Amino acid sequence: MPTIASRGTLPTRKLAPVLVALALVLPSAARAAEGMWTLHDFPAAAVKEAVGADIGAAWLDRVQRATVRLDGGCTGSFASPQGLVLTNNHCTWGCIRDLSTDERNLSEEGFFAPSFEDEAVCPGARVSVLEEMEEITEAIRGATAGKSDAAANEARKAALSRLESECEEAGELSCESVDLYHGGQYYLYKYRRYDDVRLVFAPELPIAAFGGDPDNFNFPRWDLDMSFLRVYEDGKPAATPDFLPWKAAGAEIGEATFVVGHPGSTDRLLTVAQLEELRASYLPQRLIVYSELRGRMLQWAATSDEAARQVQQRILGVENGIKVWKNRLASLMDPEQMARKEAAERALRATLAADPQLAAAYGSAWSDVEAALAVWATMAERYRFIEDGLGFQGTLTDWAWTLVRGTREREKPNEERLREFRETALPRVEQRLLAASPVHVGYETLRLAFSLDKLREWLGPDDPVVQSVLGRQSPEELTAELLAGTRLADPAFRRELWEGGVEAVEASGDPLIALAREVEPVALALRKRFDDEVEAPLAQASEKIAKARFAVYGKGTYPDATFTLRVSYGAVRGWSERGEEVHPFTHFGRAFERATGKDPFRLPASWLAARDALDLDTRFNFASDNDIIGGNSGSPVVDAEGRLVGVAFDGNIHSIAGAYWFDETKNRTVSVHVAAMLEALRAVYGADRLLDELQVVP
Amino acid sequence: MPTIASRGTLPTRKLAPVLVALALVLPSAARAAEGMWTLHDFPAAAVKEAVGADIGAAWLDRVQRATVRLDGGCTGSFASPQGLVLTNNHCTWGCIRDLSTDERNLSEEGFFAPSFEDEAVCPGARVSVLEEMEEITEAIRGATAGKSDAAANEARKAALSRLESECEEAGELSCESVDLYHGGQYYLYKYRRYDDVRLVFAPELPIAAFGGDPDNFNFPRWDLDMSFLRVYEDGKPAATPDFLPWKAAGAEIGEATFVVGHPGSTDRLLTVAQLEELRASYLPQRLIVYSELRGRMLQWAATSDEAARQVQQRILGVENGIKVWKNRLASLMDPEQMARKEAAERALRATLAADPQLAAAYGSAWSDVEAALAVWATMAERYRFIEDGLGFQGTLTDWAWTLVRGTREREKPNEERLREFRETALPRVEQRLLAASPVHVGYETLRLAFSLDKLREWLGPDDPVVQSVLGRQSPEELTAELLAGTRLADPAFRRELWEGGVEAVEASGDPLIALAREVEPVALALRKRFDDEVEAPLAQASEKIAKARFAVYGKGTYPDATFTLRVSYGAVRGWSERGEEVHPFTHFGRAFERATGKDPFRLPASWLAARDALDLDTRFNFASDNDIIGGNSGSPVVDAEGRLVGVAFDGNIHSIAGAYWFDETKNRTVSVHVAAMLEALRAVYGADRLLDELQVVP
Repeated sequence: MPTIASRGTLPTRKLAPVLVALALVLPSAARAAEGMWTLHDFPAAAVKEAVGADIGAAWLDRVQRATVRLDGGCTGSFASPQGLVLTNNHCTWGCIRDLSTDERNLSEEGFFAPSFEDEAVCPGARVSVLEEMEEITEAIRGATAGKSDAAANEARKAALSRLESECEEAGELSCESVDLYHGGQYYLYKYRRYDDVRLVFAPELPIAAFGGDPDNFNFPRWDLDMSFLRVYEDGKPAATPDFLPWKAAGAEIGEATFVVGHPGSTDRLLTVAQLEELRASYLPQRLIVYSELRGRMLQWAATSDEAARQVQQRILGVENGIKVWKNRLASLMDPEQMARKEAAERALRATLAADPQLAAAYGSAWSDVEAALAVWATMAERYRFIEDGLGFQGTLTDWAWTLVRGTREREKPNEERLREFRETALPRVEQRLLAASPVHVGYETLRLAFSLDKLREWLGPDDPVVQSVLGRQSPEELTAELLAGTRLADPAFRRELWEGGVEAVEASGDPLIALAREVEPVALALRKRFDDEVEAPLAQASEKIAKARFAVYGKGTYPDATFTLRVSYGAVRGWSERGEEVHPFTHFGRAFERATGKDPFRLPASWLAARDALDLDTRFNFASDNDIIGGNSGSPVVDAEGRLVGVAFDGNIHSIAGAYWFDETKNRTVSVHVAAMLEALRAVYGADRLLDELQVVP
Repeated sequence: MPTIASRGTLPTRKLAPVLVALALVLPSAARAAEGMWTLHDFPAAAVKEAVGADIGAAWLDRVQRATVRLDGGCTGSFASPQGLVLTNNHCTWGCIRDLSTDERNLSEEGFFAPSFEDEAVCPGARVSVLEEMEEITEAIRGATAGKSDAAANEARKAALSRLESECEEAGELSCESVDLYHGGQYYLYKYRRYDDVRLVFAPELPIAAFGGDPDNFNFPRWDLDMSFLRVYEDGKPAATPDFLPWKAAGAEIGEATFVVGHPGSTDRLLTVAQLEELRASYLPQRLIVYSELRGRMLQWAATSDEAARQVQQRILGVENGIKVWKNRLASLMDPEQMARKEAAERALRATLAADPQLAAAYGSAWSDVEAALAVWATMAERYRFIEDGLGFQGTLTDWAWTLVRGTREREKPNEERLREFRETALPRVEQRLLAASPVHVGYETLRLAFSLDKLREWLGPDDPVVQSVLGRQSPEELTAELLAGTRLADPAFRRELWEGGVEAVEASGDPLIALAREVEPVALALRKRFDDEVEAPLAQASEKIAKARFAVYGKGTYPDATFTLRVSYGAVRGWSERGEEVHPFTHFGRAFERATGKDPFRLPASWLAARDALDLDTRFNFASDNDIIGGNSGSPVVDAEGRLVGVAFDGNIHSIAGAYWFDETKNRTVSVHVAAMLEALRAVYGADRLLDELQVVP
């Protein structure tokens, strides 16, 4: 399950720093399936040539309205006119956990609401449907023209916040700006929001993630990684006339497939220096820190059923991250791929150098990047642990930070606020802060004590923040004290503070609030320095590189992923692994043979009971050469007629390098086949209510 | 505590593969303190010039006989004529753990034997004193001349085993061959062995490792990382006339210091391709696997006092490894240092290329290395997890492998055996196998289940060995079954099997023996392939490079560390860290100020009680620019007169890059000052018996 946006899998308090920021697409000849294309610049002619399908405006418009974004970091698609949403099971783990209790572990039991009334609200979930797109590049250029790096950076962010607010005031849609090609194009994307999202159906975890971490990112594969949600409006199922019919037969080998969804982020346009920074610093640190967390979680899970329930899916999430980072690190060590990257960069720079005008306009970008990275190197550890929250983990801690920073930022004029608290972002901030999500104290304790320990380890016991936070206490003692004293688990208390604003938050004696207040000035100073001395010059340099690329190569390339709507084209296709052909389909029968009865190769009782009733020749999962990444989880896989043939849930092991480059000979998307979903709903789950609701075509 | 040889800190069943194998010392101008010099090629003139000391044969002979090797991976020095050995506390953790019980945690309480009778035998410990050295390079050259890579490799190993046996038959000493400069020189080193080693004194862990992992590899530092052992002969303290007097005042800033000891291994002579392999594959894997193990151990330690006692020091060992690998990985990402390495390699190759005779003799070495590494890449994971034991961890499992492989190898003629079971190695194999070491079942369970889980993760659930070992069982189930059924915890049972030989081992129904028997053929095939296709060509190539270096640069350089006796020269000296001078001495007083009362900054009760009796101005630890590495732990630091001024126990953070290169501006050794040891023995421990035994000079 690679295909949840990484911020979804391993949430940190704020989004990752914008080092993922610069631009240089390989100017290669079009390859079969490379690219996550925007709908406003869709390469219809190239698609026609590559996969033989005629994709027109009507097709694009239809899949746009039938595809949804799960704002936690996934994609889904409407499966009926009554707001039914198909997505991955792993995209609903948070909801399943929130709805489980000591008595009822829905992850283990699965969930099926026999009627609308039984559909259960997912706390804090939001679904967005992209309705309109409007380019605002010129307005942004105007706002930043002639300014210094830091001033331009501020002006750009102010203009984006202003344009978003104006957009929302002008209509009923929610507006988010999008930065494409790292400064090459700016857009306003306008969404219809659904804040009432309910769980309808989820199979048991053992079949949704059959094979667990060992099989994750591998193929062949046998996972029913699907769930159904439903969006409600005014307490009733929302009307969603633009939904996808399901094609029961799926797609055959070589048949064109399109993945429509919201890929989270890729780093294909980064400079070599930025990739080297990821390789030398970011990725090793992630691996070291989260591998230890994995060990702690696994060992804690063994202490009680309750502990296991709290961390079962979270462990899979951490393991997913580790597999991603491990393979990304390995791909950045691949001398051949890196040499290719370096050659492309050299070629572009040589072209610029040969043209005095281009050289003057854009030639300095790469050394500007290196200068910004040199500043970053002096502050990266403190930024990550303090401002980015690596040293203060847990849901309660996140809420404390939202309350302290959010109430202060709210006092400022919209255009001067940190972007995560701009006016148009506040509804989502509030929804997450005030949601009635249960708090798992055991897990919160583990996570906070662990992160405080890492804070001390990486910054050193003599760092002023470490000294002021821990004093003479151990991470475990401080954690116990904070969690025993805080009332933040109570949504009413959080609402009281949020509505009471700065005054209430400053006056609060809550120990987690006090901790956040204490660290906030240091965190804010780090943020300010980052914004002015790292983000600002990187933004200016990346804009230069984007313009240079447009000037030299034209506009026939795609932007890095930005968790906004994209279409990837490709076809059902296996690949060759160490000389052996990997067939693109798996079938139900093999899952029964592969099952050991022990996690993670244990089939749920429902499947064992239904074995005779199941057609064991049913296609289960399939591989295609579409180009996807985390965030595409739950994406509809559709055919040239716009019918659903599968739901994407993973990539093969080679797809992980897709963060940096696309290798069409090996990189594969892995999806659940429509036939598998229909057969399981029928023979295992008796979900006639849902089968009747779907529009199934032969 | 970097300075325990890594095989000691994180034991694997067999020694690490010999990728640590090739030769290219930088032909730089002599730097102040670089080099771990052999006694037979000691650079007396350079030392005179660098630190102003006249080091002659008598001085070398004296420190040679007064320095001991702790065969578990450390160094020590004789402190009296009655076999008293000073070493680091962390070099005695295994013994302290073995001597502890549920009722008595010696790690927490410390240990002091009030009389000889109370000195407690350390199970399986061995101390070796180097008595003689004999060069055998010509004999080895003769054995391998004109043979193919694989045949030469076998012939070389056969000749080494034969010469060792002949050497032992000719006298009373134990003989080990030593490969210096990776094939440049061969020696027989002849040792006096002591198999009866007893614990005399150990301070409490909280002061021995004050600051724990956060302070490890850092300076300033406040650790009493010392223990006393004693070697016995025929049940009586051994007579050791060559011991070191202690100089109470220690050494002053700038005064010459010599570290005499057994550095474990360095990789300074590796080719760039070999360093890249470490960076891309070995180090990331170690970090991922052992960070998870760290998390599991920490979380398990929290479940009971008994669990904590079993893993307390082992956690520090794992954390030490993680810090080493993390900083080694970072140093191999340092573009400046790597560029220097590449330039040196290019320069040597260019010199060879310019001389037809040298080119013909040695020019192919680097491409031979790359070819061997390409083979290695295809088999590294399986080799590490199966043959090198990464997938089968734990003391009981190690014993099972020793019994299965050892009894089989013992049947063969000496020269045909795997080297770890050659005739002269068997006494040590038996000592370790048959020692009355207690077995901690909880820890064994954690370690074996963890490693089987990693075996499946890294080789994949479909690997034939994974399939045959686990079948339909989970790692936890299989572990529980194996450990419930095995009798290997009983030394008498192990003896029965060892003495019963192949027949007894083949007939045994013990489940761990059965597991080892099942995997052994695959492991042995991997070993054979490694020996013939990786080790053999690397050995030939490294010999070429060593000869090329001698031809081009002469013999004024030092060989990589080989866990054999070396002397490093230097001086007491701080360094500059981010523009601030780090003073080379710390004092007792600051430890009391720094103490928080909480691990790892907790002072033991004995210290808190003795505070008023202690001279708080006593020098505690000090930094010097000697060049050391893991294995040097416990090394005597001596002055130009051959008097002890400290005991080396760590390096600063920059010393970790010392595996690959020596940066004299930053790389520092960290030692316990003689004055601190004397003052603590007097005022905290009332150890008059030992103070009387030492020969203290003002």
